[in-house]
This record gives sequence, C-alpha cells and structure tokens, in this order.
Amino acid sequence: MHKTKGLLVVFSGPSGSGKGTVLAEVMKRYPDMEFSVSATTRAPREGEKDGVNYFFKTKEEFQDMVENGGFIEWAQFCENCYGTPRAYVESRLEQGKDVVLEIEVQGAMQVKEAFPDAVLIFNLPPSMQELESRLIGRNTEPIDVVNKRLATAKEELLVADRYDYVIVNDVVEYAAEKFLSILKSEKCKAERNISLLKEFK
Amino acid sequence: MHKTKGLLVVFSGPSGSGKGTVLAEVMKRYPDMEFSVSATTRAPREGEKDGVNYFFKTKEEFQDMVENGGFIEWAQFCENCYGTPRAYVESRLEQGKDVVLEIEVQGAMQVKEAFPDAVLIFNLPPSMQELESRLIGRNTEPIDVVNKRLATAKEELLVADRYDYVIVNDVVEYAAEKFLSILKSEKCKAERNISLLKEFK
Repeated sequence: MHKTKGLLVVFSGPSGSGKGTVLAEVMKRYPDMEFSVSATTRAPREGEKDGVNYFFKTKEEFQDMVENGGFIEWAQFCENCYGTPRAYVESRLEQGKDVVLEIEVQGAMQVKEAFPDAVLIFNLPPSMQELESRLIGRNTEPIDVVNKRLATAKEELLVADRYDYVIVNDVVEYAAEKFLSILKSEKCKAERNISLLKEFK
Repeated sequence: MHKTKGLLVVFSGPSGSGKGTVLAEVMKRYPDMEFSVSATTRAPREGEKDGVNYFFKTKEEFQDMVENGGFIEWAQFCENCYGTPRAYVESRLEQGKDVVLEIEVQGAMQVKEAFPDAVLIFNLPPSMQELESRLIGRNTEPIDVVNKRLATAKEELLVADRYDYVIVNDVVEYAAEKFLSILKSEKCKAERNISLLKEFK
C-alpha cells in the first residue's frame, strides 16, 4: 500500500457565496474529511459555538499564538484576526486525512506559499447581482458593516484567478459534487503518485 | 452562458491494462463524450469493425493523410501505423464536446505539444504481475508477439509520469469514476474559466 499524506484543501469565497452550505454538503458525503477549526478574535454570532465554528480568542491570546508560530496562516479581516492552528492540520495530514481550511484570500496565499501541494478552491456566487442581494438581504448587521463586506467581497473576487479551481455555487449539490471531484482528481495526479509509479519501473 | 471549448482527453496505458473496458464504462455514464476513432494500417482483429474500432487504411492511404496534415498525431507501433484524424477532433472541440483519444505514448506527447490544454490520463494495471499474466493469458497471438507487447508495455510504463494523471484500473467502476472526476475537476480549473471570472471584475 502507498501510505500517502492527505490533501490540504483551501476553500475561500466572498461572504454570501455560500461556502458553509457547500462544505456542509461535502462533509455529509465525505464524513472522513477533516475540517480545520480556525481561531478568531471576532465575537461569536448567534448560535456559533467555541471549538465548533471557531476557537474564540482574545486579542492577547491570538497574539501569543502568532508569536509562538502556532498558525500556518493568519490574517486580519474586517478588524478581526483569523488563524489556522498549525498542530492540528499537520498531524491530520500526516495521518493521511484530507483537511479543509475555510479561510479568506490573504490566508490562502500564505498557505499556498508554505504548502505548494495545497489545493485552492474558490467558491463563486451565481452572479454579482445575486451576491449583492444575499448580503443586503441577510439584514442581521448594520448597513455600514454590510457595505464593508460588499467592498471586501469585490476585492476577494479580484484574486479568484490565483486559485487552482473555481466552483460556481448555483445548486449546492452540484457545487459539492465538483468539490469532491476535485479531491478525487487531485489524488490521481501523476506527481502525487511517484512512489506508485516506481513500482512499475 | 460561457460557451467553452470541449476538453481534449488523451487516454493511454499498456496493452492489457484494460483501457477499453474503462472507456466503455465511462461512455455508459457519460454518453455525450466523443470517442475519436483512430486510423490504422494494422489488420482488423476478430470482431473489429471499420469506422467503429478503427478506420482501417492501407499503408499508402495512411501516408497520404500524413502528407496532407490530416493527423493531429500519428505513430508507428509494433510495425503498424496509428493516427488521429484532425478534422473530426477539432470540429467537436469547437462545438464544446469533450473528445477522448485512446492512443499510445508517442502520440500522447505529440498531442500535448500541439494542444497544451489537453488532459493526459494514464491507465495503470493493478500490478506488473497482473499485467504480465493478462498479456500471456490472452493466448490469441504467437509468443513472440506477446513478448514484444510485454517489452512495449514496460517501455510505456516508464513514461507514465509524463502524464497529468494516473488511474489504477483495479475495479473498472472505480477507474471510470476517477476518469469522470478528472474531467469534472479540469473544467473547474481557474485557467479554464477566465471569461467567467471577468464577469466578477
């Protein structure tokens, strides 16, 4: 058998593109995939749980982890910090588990630099109009927060072409299927099967 | 809508690796894929039909097509010539159809050079032992033909790492699923979605 490391998958997309819904569908079909829980300094939204949605940290706690190399990437976004704890991710990859990080674009570029084998997937809304109406329609936050999020979404969309793959989230089941096909396909890449190919030489 | 060109897929693998069985399963699940019928100078095997398995050509007819640029690739293999007719492939790709070429390794490298966007998939037998027993067990040809085919198989396996993807054909349904995942995944590549991404800028 060829004991191979798991895939490190980065999944990004603007707020309102439905990343969470796609990932939930992916996890339903592929429960063995590991979901890396990020650390953040932002306040929990209603219903969010510590250790499930995020590890909620104070600014001081977060800063300590940064200084001790505890993150494989971290970034500031809408005045809050977000980071991916290193130890969890590296141990799971070594065990052969696929690990998905739901992070924003700055962090994604850091991961690609540190892990060139990582697979970067960008989640697109069906259209710009649809994204705007979703963000405005959410109505859970003040208008200046919504506007800031819209501006950020537009900035993020500008770098979608630096990702390996883009998925249009029109129908969540189709988007999830594309996500899973990308994983399966990446595992067939010749460069990920060097030790297997050696057996035939 | 984004009218995109179809994928040009090259599928190779040593004699005995079960390419035909995998392709048959793929076509069953994805009947819209086009299968390019090669031209060859070799004699038909029992049950093979002209225009279905191959276009059977005399050496003179084949040479004429070579001289008139009628092939996107051609190669000599076990003393016979094989080639992929250009007109059919190019027209189908323009229509947005995915086209698969079942060709050997020399031809595959020519296609990759002429069509850098082509997706090259190599079909691996479960093991070298299994391949040998399949080739010997076929028993439809004289021993020197079998030996030559074995030697050719070993040569072909040496260049499998120049393909984009490798598929192990252990269970044909799994192999077909991998094949189809590769197609779906390739269509999500950011570089194949430039015009879509422009809409978000």
